[in-house]
Amino acid sequence: MADTQVQTMTGAEALVSTLADHGVTACFANPGTSEMHLVTALDREPRIRSVLGLFEGVATGAADGHARVTGGPAMTLLHLGAGFMNGGANIHNAKRAWTPMINVIGDHAVPHLRYDAPLTSNIMGLAGPNSNWIKSADTVASTGELAAEAWEASFGPVPGPVSLLLPADSAWTEGGKSGKKRARPSLRAPDAARIEAAAKQVKSAKKPVILVNGTCLTKDGLAHAGRLSAAGIRVLTDTFFPRQARGAGTFIPERMQYFAEAAMADLEGADLMLVAGTQVPVAFFSYPGKPSVLVPEGCTPYIIGGPETDSAAILAALADALGAKAAAGVAPRDEHAMPSGDLNAMTVGMSLSRHMPEGTFVSDDGVSNGLPCFLMTQRALPHDWMMLTGGAIGQGMPLALGAAIAAPDRKVLCLTGDGAGMYTNQALWSMARENANVVNVVFVNHSYRILNIELARTGAGNPGPTAKSMLELGQPEIDWVKLSEAQGVPAVNATTAEEFDKALERAFASDGPHLIAAHVPAR
Amino acid sequence: MADTQVQTMTGAEALVSTLADHGVTACFANPGTSEMHLVTALDREPRIRSVLGLFEGVATGAADGHARVTGGPAMTLLHLGAGFMNGGANIHNAKRAWTPMINVIGDHAVPHLRYDAPLTSNIMGLAGPNSNWIKSADTVASTGELAAEAWEASFGPVPGPVSLLLPADSAWTEGGKSGKKRARPSLRAPDAARIEAAAKQVKSAKKPVILVNGTCLTKDGLAHAGRLSAAGIRVLTDTFFPRQARGAGTFIPERMQYFAEAAMADLEGADLMLVAGTQVPVAFFSYPGKPSVLVPEGCTPYIIGGPETDSAAILAALADALGAKAAAGVAPRDEHAMPSGDLNAMTVGMSLSRHMPEGTFVSDDGVSNGLPCFLMTQRALPHDWMMLTGGAIGQGMPLALGAAIAAPDRKVLCLTGDGAGMYTNQALWSMARENANVVNVVFVNHSYRILNIELARTGAGNPGPTAKSMLELGQPEIDWVKLSEAQGVPAVNATTAEEFDKALERAFASDGPHLIAAHVPAR
Repeated sequence: MADTQVQTMTGAEALVSTLADHGVTACFANPGTSEMHLVTALDREPRIRSVLGLFEGVATGAADGHARVTGGPAMTLLHLGAGFMNGGANIHNAKRAWTPMINVIGDHAVPHLRYDAPLTSNIMGLAGPNSNWIKSADTVASTGELAAEAWEASFGPVPGPVSLLLPADSAWTEGGKSGKKRARPSLRAPDAARIEAAAKQVKSAKKPVILVNGTCLTKDGLAHAGRLSAAGIRVLTDTFFPRQARGAGTFIPERMQYFAEAAMADLEGADLMLVAGTQVPVAFFSYPGKPSVLVPEGCTPYIIGGPETDSAAILAALADALGAKAAAGVAPRDEHAMPSGDLNAMTVGMSLSRHMPEGTFVSDDGVSNGLPCFLMTQRALPHDWMMLTGGAIGQGMPLALGAAIAAPDRKVLCLTGDGAGMYTNQALWSMARENANVVNVVFVNHSYRILNIELARTGAGNPGPTAKSMLELGQPEIDWVKLSEAQGVPAVNATTAEEFDKALERAFASDGPHLIAAHVPAR
Repeated sequence: MADTQVQTMTGAEALVSTLADHGVTACFANPGTSEMHLVTALDREPRIRSVLGLFEGVATGAADGHARVTGGPAMTLLHLGAGFMNGGANIHNAKRAWTPMINVIGDHAVPHLRYDAPLTSNIMGLAGPNSNWIKSADTVASTGELAAEAWEASFGPVPGPVSLLLPADSAWTEGGKSGKKRARPSLRAPDAARIEAAAKQVKSAKKPVILVNGTCLTKDGLAHAGRLSAAGIRVLTDTFFPRQARGAGTFIPERMQYFAEAAMADLEGADLMLVAGTQVPVAFFSYPGKPSVLVPEGCTPYIIGGPETDSAAILAALADALGAKAAAGVAPRDEHAMPSGDLNAMTVGMSLSRHMPEGTFVSDDGVSNGLPCFLMTQRALPHDWMMLTGGAIGQGMPLALGAAIAAPDRKVLCLTGDGAGMYTNQALWSMARENANVVNVVFVNHSYRILNIELARTGAGNPGPTAKSMLELGQPEIDWVKLSEAQGVPAVNATTAEEFDKALERAFASDGPHLIAAHVPAR
């Protein structure tokens, strides 16, 4: 450094500048009194863009979306234990997406903690279970070093959210020092012996399948997946995954069925299940008399590498070991005709395939309406599809916000159910504030439709009026256009396939956020 | 029982009916797949009213409000660890209000847990820190008994939230049994020796004060507080308290100042601080160079009884020990004149004092605008004032919803900041659905105004554009009328004192929920 003058820094400044030194470029924040010095430290750090959320679940979901686009962690700024809990569901989701994320949680000054002030809580206890790493910077001298350690820890071995607590006195005191620069950790290289063993098993299997996730779902990874497919191995992705490259020119893997009995029927006869970049598949929920592990009898699961491994490299090495050639057919572009008539998830998907610009990032929290859209866009222009992996609905709009901040030159499409969208509807305001290029499609069916399906599947009996009412959102009907406009995002209703198609085309053609309330029947 | 036929019950039914047997009358719910059997069990239990929230923070805040009105716990229904976290901030607030609350958290079936399905989390770990009692009903046989134990545990010794985990298989399996009926626990009776010691100290003190909370703030408790005041003891309440009876005919205690330096100045010269129904006062936040404990030098704190004690009985016994007579003057009714001109918290408070019907429950999450309203309504018609005690803003509207469900023949007034209100704006939808008699007053200043004040107080330096922008909510401005109408609650803007006064009068005169966006300057 040219500047040898000794600079004094507060702990907050040491933390923030150390994260910036490591390449962190965004902070999604909902600050309170105990974080005021972090706010002014962010003010002085031009390398980090600060984005305000009106609710912490917006901040943590956006940090997840930002990281899925950039590959590195974003920072969040949360207000004590209560702020952590408000952001907790989307931290859970991020953990299940193996997303690196640095949650900076403000705390009371250390000498103040013993007095049990109203906002005091056991943050270590609350945040510990969903943090892959958690420490508290209880001295100002530790702030920079722990920031560097947190950044490194967010990469794994399995990437995920980490928590760094910052007591207010560590934040405000002078004497902060930059943390030592760390090298960026990589995912593990594949284990050669396991690949050899897998290749051997494939050769003696009648119906081998491989379940893939992680870097398998990059454009490169899918090219190798196509080679395995050409060599006779059925390629399936997890039902939900953090991000998949797709569209014209990309190999199309199959996707594991959501419902356990459908998944088991689909896998019938498979005698080998290789696993790359994920775990042996399990049912999302348990049901009376239905299996938990989704591996049919007579089928041997074999994990070549879990989520800590660069699974694209597994596919490449396995394809080489099997002497597999390049895949024959990859998906050509297939533009659906303009749909007409009743609006439903299928016609929405057709319009998406027509109008999604190349490079679109999709944030899919569409619940019961997600799958038809997914299927109809297999041969759209090349794009990336991001899903809710942790099951805590309400992630869609925050994730889209974060992706849009990370990729301002790309379009982001958010698919969300109306039930899901209400959880963190405050994300709309941040989209308006940041002029984020997000087209929000809300599937309005005035129902927790998935729960109506699940009610029957769980055998919970014939629903009476109370049970039915607990799954209906129609009394009163939520006016999504007003809800969106109230927060500064222009919005329209669409009730036919034609209306939706035109609204979508217009939304993609203009800058900034938009919302389309897609009125689809609940059936 | 006349019916001697053996009834079979699922675990869910045993849990729900046992809670109903103990007098639980409301369940605030946001269910998911793992709670379907709880939903159908609630369907068959006419003694419990089920209220759906679109976000778990609405459910937990409403359960708090319901309990503050009824005195007994309401039940919540939360979807696994993610659902708990979404409701966590208002559970924190309930813990800080000593509110009994039974959080029933659905979990995966026990045999499914080991497979680490996407929604699996360490619920014991996440919920433990803010639960006064936590157990998991891992067998169907335990469901009813643990429900009874949870109910009992919610009463204390210090009342608060308890967590009962219900794995899906315990919920769906037949073989549930009702839990043994428990007697309702009472708060502890005062300690006679401590009262005697306190009386002795008062006699030798020059400037005694007593800090009160809990049952001290009931109408009865305040009558005894008035006797102590007449006997020369200054009576102060905590800055924030769960519920206080006030208005014409009720003794008016003073209230501890929020900011530490103001509190210390106010207490200057006090040489004895008795404490009844609360703790020794501490600053809400810590600030560089400012005290944590709000007891001036030379002043001895003496705890007669904490929040586990029936503090009204302490006041009665202490007043008796001091031979204190009935208080001379209690507040007469004082109806302010119709305010005019600029709208601000003071003129809002004047209108409140004019139009609040007798028996109104106030839910105060008004942050920087709360205090003027509080002061202006001291001599309104008799009413009850409920406050945010835990500091996690966003409680106001959910708390009001719960109070309205508990007291359908009373009016509820919700005061909320615009920043605070956005956290759990979904409460509006539940108010519309339940036709809850809540008048919501949102102080619209497009700012986290309290943080602008705190920024200066914490000495975090001169705020630059990023810091300023993190505390401003004005870009874009939120349209509260649209946000409210979108969720089915009629709403109006008020920009002058006259407009507000008329809007308030109209809102109180009609049934169901209303919202008034009170545009007050941020200064």
